[in-house]
Amino acid sequence: MSGSLVIVGLGPGEARWLTPAAKAAIECASDLVGYGPYLDRIPAREGQTKHGSDNRVEIARAGHALTLAAQGRAVAVVSGGDPGVFAMAAAVFEALEAGDPAWLALPIAIEPGITAMLAAAARTGAPLGGDFCAISLSDNLKPWEVATARLEAVLRADFVICLYNPISRARPWQLGQALGMAARHRPVDTPVIFARAIGRRDESLRVLRMDEAAAAAGSADMATLVMIGASSTRLIAREGGAPYVYTPRSVTKSPCATSQGRT
Amino acid sequence: MSGSLVIVGLGPGEARWLTPAAKAAIECASDLVGYGPYLDRIPAREGQTKHGSDNRVEIARAGHALTLAAQGRAVAVVSGGDPGVFAMAAAVFEALEAGDPAWLALPIAIEPGITAMLAAAARTGAPLGGDFCAISLSDNLKPWEVATARLEAVLRADFVICLYNPISRARPWQLGQALGMAARHRPVDTPVIFARAIGRRDESLRVLRMDEAAAAAGSADMATLVMIGASSTRLIAREGGAPYVYTPRSVTKSPCATSQGRT
Repeated sequence: MSGSLVIVGLGPGEARWLTPAAKAAIECASDLVGYGPYLDRIPAREGQTKHGSDNRVEIARAGHALTLAAQGRAVAVVSGGDPGVFAMAAAVFEALEAGDPAWLALPIAIEPGITAMLAAAARTGAPLGGDFCAISLSDNLKPWEVATARLEAVLRADFVICLYNPISRARPWQLGQALGMAARHRPVDTPVIFARAIGRRDESLRVLRMDEAAAAAGSADMATLVMIGASSTRLIAREGGAPYVYTPRSVTKSPCATSQGRT
Repeated sequence: MSGSLVIVGLGPGEARWLTPAAKAAIECASDLVGYGPYLDRIPAREGQTKHGSDNRVEIARAGHALTLAAQGRAVAVVSGGDPGVFAMAAAVFEALEAGDPAWLALPIAIEPGITAMLAAAARTGAPLGGDFCAISLSDNLKPWEVATARLEAVLRADFVICLYNPISRARPWQLGQALGMAARHRPVDTPVIFARAIGRRDESLRVLRMDEAAAAAGSADMATLVMIGASSTRLIAREGGAPYVYTPRSVTKSPCATSQGRT
C-alpha cells in the first residue's frame, strides 16, 4: 500500500488566491475527490480521475477517498476555502477514526487555503481587527440551541462574528433569527457584511446596518459569508467607492457594556 | 497623486504558502513597508526600497506608508500571516481615519494570506472542525479583564480557542493564567496545541494535555499560536508520528455542559 491522501484548500475561487502548495498537490494527484462544483474549478488533466459527489455526503466522500488511497492511489480531497474550516478535513478524520485500522498507516497531509472570512475581510477593509469567531449556522450537525447559545455568548463578549453556512432551502429562518439576536446586543449602526462568492466572477458585497440586516437575511445563500461587527466596528466613507469597514485594535471598555442592548 | 497602497499577507513563511496575488503585489511595489523580520523574508530587488521598522510602532508605520503613497509611490505594507488578523490592516485604517483627508483618495487594497491558526490546524489534523474563535492575549491595546471575560465566554460556550500573541517579555504570566482558566472548563485530556513558527525552518509543534498546558506556558513565545480544543476535540494515535488532532463536526450536547469544570 503506497497510496496517500492530501486534503486541499482551493481558497475562495480565484487562481491568484490558490497557494502554490495547494496547486502542486492537485497536480500530483492521481484522483481528485470532492463536491462537484469544486472539482469543476479544476481543469481536466490526462491520467487524473475526478470523483464528484453531492453536497452533504461528506463522510461517504471521505471514506471513498481513504479507500482509494489504501488501494495505492495518490488522492487529493478538494475543499473550497480552507479544508479545516467547516469543510472536508474534519470529515476525513471522522471517517479515519471509525474506519479500517489499516488507513492509519496512510500518509495524510492538509494544505491550507484562504477561508471565506479572510477574503471577505480583505475586500472590505479590516473588519477582523479585533477578537473574532466563526460559527456555522447549519443545524445538520448540531442542535440549533447550541448555535444560539454560542451566538449569545460571543455577542455579549463583543466579538466580531463570522457566520458560515448561513442559510439554505432547508434552513430558511435561522439567519434572520441570528441577526435579530445580534440587533439586541449591537448599536443600530454596527456594520453587517454580506459577502457572497468573494473571489469568483459572480461575487457581490453589501455592507448593511445592524437594524436592516435581519430583514435582508433572505437575500443570503450558502455562498454568503455574513460578518457581524463588534460594537466598535466602524465605517470610513470615501468618494467613489463603498465605505471601508474596520474594527479598531484597541478596546477601552468592558466587553459586557453592550449586553443590555444599545438602540 | 497617483500612488497606491496594498496591505499584503505573507502567510506563515513558506513560499509555497504565499498566494500568487500577494507575490505579485510585492513585486509591483516601489516601496515595501513593514516590521524588519518580515521584510527580511523578501529578496532585495533593484529599484525597490525597503522601509523596516520595529515591532509595536504599527500606527507610525501605517502613517509612513500612507504618506509615501500620497507622494505617488506604489507602497506595499507587509504582514506575516493574514494582514487582517491581529496585523497591519486595522492599523492602516486607524491611521487613515485620523490622518490627512487627502489619503481617502488613495486606492487601498488588501491581499489575504494564510493566518497562523490555519497553518497550525493543517499541520495537526482538523482541530478547527467546529465553531472556533481567535483572541489576542496582548494587553497593549485592550485591558486584561476584557481578554479574560472573552476567554471565559468562549470556554463556557465550548468554542475551539486560538490564542494569538500569547506571551512576551513584557507579558510573562498572561498565557499561564489563560490556560489555568481553560483547565477549569475543559476535560483534563483536552488537546492543547503549541504551534511555533509553522511554515518556517525552525517550526515546532507540541500537542499537550489540558492538565499540563499551563505549566508549559513559559515555553511559548510571540511566534507561537496556542490552540485550546473544545470539549469534543480528540486525538487519533498513529504509528510513527504525532497523533492527529481533530474536532468532530457534530455537537450533541449543550455547550454549557462543560461550564462547571470536568476533572
